[in-house]
Amino acid sequence: MPTPSYVGSMAGQDFLNTNDYSQDEIVSILRAAGDLRSDFRNKVQTQYLSGKTLFMLFYNRSLRTRNSFEAGIYQLGGHAHFLSPSDVYTPTLPEDMVPYQTEAIADVGRVLSRYGDAIAIRVYGDAAKWVIGRGHRIIQEFARWSSIPVLNMEDDVFHPFQALADMRAILDVAPKPKGKKFVVSYAYSGGLKPLAVPQSCVLIGTQFGMDVVLAHPKGFDLEDHVIKAAKENANKYGGSFEVVNDMKEAFKDADFVYPKAWSPKTFVPPYNKAVDKDGASAYQNSFKDWKCTQEMMDLTYKAKYMHCGPVDRGQEATDDVVDNDAYSVYFEQAENRLHVQKAVMAMVMGA
Amino acid sequence: MPTPSYVGSMAGQDFLNTNDYSQDEIVSILRAAGDLRSDFRNKVQTQYLSGKTLFMLFYNRSLRTRNSFEAGIYQLGGHAHFLSPSDVYTPTLPEDMVPYQTEAIADVGRVLSRYGDAIAIRVYGDAAKWVIGRGHRIIQEFARWSSIPVLNMEDDVFHPFQALADMRAILDVAPKPKGKKFVVSYAYSGGLKPLAVPQSCVLIGTQFGMDVVLAHPKGFDLEDHVIKAAKENANKYGGSFEVVNDMKEAFKDADFVYPKAWSPKTFVPPYNKAVDKDGASAYQNSFKDWKCTQEMMDLTYKAKYMHCGPVDRGQEATDDVVDNDAYSVYFEQAENRLHVQKAVMAMVMGA
Amino acid sequence: MPTPSYVGSMAGQDFLNTNDYSQDEIVSILRAAGDLRSDFRNKVQTQYLSGKTLFMLFYNRSLRTRNSFEAGIYQLGGHAHFLSPSDVYTPTLPEDMVPYQTEAIADVGRVLSRYGDAIAIRVYGDAAKWVIGRGHRIIQEFARWSSIPVLNMEDDVFHPFQALADMRAILDVAPKPKGKKFVVSYAYSGGLKPLAVPQSCVLIGTQFGMDVVLAHPKGFDLEDHVIKAAKENANKYGGSFEVVNDMKEAFKDADFVYPKAWSPKTFVPPYNKAVDKDGASAYQNSFKDWKCTQEMMDLTYKAKYMHCGPVDRGQEATDDVVDNDAYSVYFEQAENRLHVQKAVMAMVMGA
Repeated sequence: MPTPSYVGSMAGQDFLNTNDYSQDEIVSILRAAGDLRSDFRNKVQTQYLSGKTLFMLFYNRSLRTRNSFEAGIYQLGGHAHFLSPSDVYTPTLPEDMVPYQTEAIADVGRVLSRYGDAIAIRVYGDAAKWVIGRGHRIIQEFARWSSIPVLNMEDDVFHPFQALADMRAILDVAPKPKGKKFVVSYAYSGGLKPLAVPQSCVLIGTQFGMDVVLAHPKGFDLEDHVIKAAKENANKYGGSFEVVNDMKEAFKDADFVYPKAWSPKTFVPPYNKAVDKDGASAYQNSFKDWKCTQEMMDLTYKAKYMHCGPVDRGQEATDDVVDNDAYSVYFEQAENRLHVQKAVMAMVMGA
Repeated sequence: MPTPSYVGSMAGQDFLNTNDYSQDEIVSILRAAGDLRSDFRNKVQTQYLSGKTLFMLFYNRSLRTRNSFEAGIYQLGGHAHFLSPSDVYTPTLPEDMVPYQTEAIADVGRVLSRYGDAIAIRVYGDAAKWVIGRGHRIIQEFARWSSIPVLNMEDDVFHPFQALADMRAILDVAPKPKGKKFVVSYAYSGGLKPLAVPQSCVLIGTQFGMDVVLAHPKGFDLEDHVIKAAKENANKYGGSFEVVNDMKEAFKDADFVYPKAWSPKTFVPPYNKAVDKDGASAYQNSFKDWKCTQEMMDLTYKAKYMHCGPVDRGQEATDDVVDNDAYSVYFEQAENRLHVQKAVMAMVMGA
Repeated sequence: MPTPSYVGSMAGQDFLNTNDYSQDEIVSILRAAGDLRSDFRNKVQTQYLSGKTLFMLFYNRSLRTRNSFEAGIYQLGGHAHFLSPSDVYTPTLPEDMVPYQTEAIADVGRVLSRYGDAIAIRVYGDAAKWVIGRGHRIIQEFARWSSIPVLNMEDDVFHPFQALADMRAILDVAPKPKGKKFVVSYAYSGGLKPLAVPQSCVLIGTQFGMDVVLAHPKGFDLEDHVIKAAKENANKYGGSFEVVNDMKEAFKDADFVYPKAWSPKTFVPPYNKAVDKDGASAYQNSFKDWKCTQEMMDLTYKAKYMHCGPVDRGQEATDDVVDNDAYSVYFEQAENRLHVQKAVMAMVMGA
């Protein structure tokens, strides 16, 4: 069988944020992902990256991301190294170096570039000291120094592969998503969660001309640069972008709902002087009624329920919603992670 | 070379307990294991699981199990993910969920089922809170929710792959094991050890019609359901099953002896109200004379010495016994782990 | 393409110390490494170890070593297991056994020998209790009991693969290194570092007939057996070996300089009664002026700057030296690790 034309079509490029790419490029990724998913189901061999090595550096733990990347590169004929910071000298920004414990990202990126074919990184929360943007800067620093592609497996600003998986799931039920109402809503969880998922969601939704409604309580604003980019996308691609502070209002007539926790940014730097986890927890604990239940789903226009996983069951959504096969695409989103990642790897790592 | 007929012959099945399978099925597994062992020694390619992914979830540490499963799937052309609970959100039973630290097994099993081809789990002791049966329930929960085969790499009730490796070693010296005397005996160790190995041993011994003698001090009884199943096996397959409280009496005229530590179940739930490790340790410390020495071996009928490893040298057995090439099959048992596991993987994961 | 003649040319041998091999053998390794490096750059397939398993046991963390070995065996068609001591029952010398926490190296080596094709080990510093030579004894114990090759990924006496990578880098700029001045110098770092790198450096330099100058402050002597072997090499291979206590004097007219920290051995056993880390730190803190700067480089004869990595920037050397493309071969040394290791693996693990 001939090698598909998408293999190597973005050779050498980094993948840090979906919005760095045009709608056409994202479409081609999602089309390749669809093909790879069919191939996988039909047990077609797809060894386009034979002999290629992916370095996976996890500052945070992960189930879906680690397993989908590791299985994905293997299904493409390649091999992944699972690197936890405790196994290496933690790769670090210049200002955070600790002698004999850390190594400059500049050095790590350059060394790994001589051994293999791509570097994938996950870093947010504690690992980025809860300074929003610091995780993203770590990934940018890798991209700056590495001569091989750098992939963002989720930082504190973006989660681009999740957004790709989500849009792949949307396209599966709405091949023409333009004009569909896509609600990205805050939902309560007791944990402290990064902004990456909602930020990447509103970007990819608007990039596909959807009518994106962002719903959250006061104080849960996304970052300004994301709001600005989402509005620009809406203008450019003929959709709309709106922010509301009422979950019920948002859900009304929605085609897709994505109720998901994130934490208020005003309790952590650079939006606050210090990291105030207790303050953030206390504040978000006022919004336990932001929960996706069957009653909420009844407000929608037969909407699909979406979540990146792991969902905090009983907090963000009730079990009967998450496990409702009639409208929940929770496991389909997880499944798509495997194939969108394979698509991007084949495109940027392929020859 | 054609694919052997055993590949895929048990496609999709879980492997949690040898006694879930008929004697014929176990025989076919052990025959395949013998073939795979010959192939390995003769450097014959056996890539029957090319492109297949095995998820290995280790709640407990391991040398033999981890390396034999990882090398085994690779020798079959596939790939294993080594997952320690600290790297993922620990997959957990419904009643043990801790928000943001754990993820429901129901979700983990369903997600991994979309990414790969089998899930193997090890869980006992601290990881199962020393409640006997809780580890086994964790594995059953995975089996319930996963659409791909689930393999028991040792829980707190059964260690089926060890039992297969042990029976493979027995068959190598006694192709017709029926009527041979197989002694599964307590032997002292200061550590707290699960019941899994002796329980799986008496089950597989009786399943092959052997005259199985279980020897232990008072208070070291195996679980009732195992004793009942061993007796049923003895009736069904024409062997016998007897419990004695004297190691020397048991060893007399034995063909195979398997002296191995386990801990008295009456100090932990559900056989005690609380987990009383100190009580268990103090109690078992009274039985330091349950040790396999050359004098003990002299009581047997030229018996083979067996142990699953790692043996506590100087406690369970003396070095001169473990390392006696004339009768110790300690390293052969370890070696067989590789091949019985390859056999089961080829049978349940193959197409 | 035919299999190169070096594959399997040292089948079954251990690789613990470059000086265990003749100059001719080391030359053949470095020539194979050069070929494998060309193959890698030209994307030539080199799957000479298909189906072979390497067990990598890391008592210490690592970036270069872990990733170059894991990527290396994969590029040769094989597979590596990454084993950290916390995942297994720590393999241990007879005198250090802790029941239920450790397993005898004698047992681990014999078991792994039944599952795969080579065992690679890194152990020094804390993991070897800061008793110089104890790490090396751990590796020797593995070699004694394993029937498959054992590879030294750095212990507290030798770092043979680093020395190979360094000599490969030297040959790339000086194909006839005989008579070139090679300075292995102490350079300050606040960390406690093993002797392995400088010891292996002076051995391989003298083995190639270079004029090796070892420079360090008083109290930083290498071990006597290394000094003796370096002198013997110098006599045998027509070079010279000299020890000086002045960094500037050493750098004068040098062709290659290798300024690198190690810690004074007289503060730890067997050269001291107890492990006195504070004493070692305090003592070495007097030598912060042993630093490689541009001024130091100006003393040399257009010398190449060398370091095994990770370099403690600002302590051992300034950034402008490390990152000076005109004379720094820092990243080339790191790159060569991949290929010298592939060469040795192909030679000892190949058929």
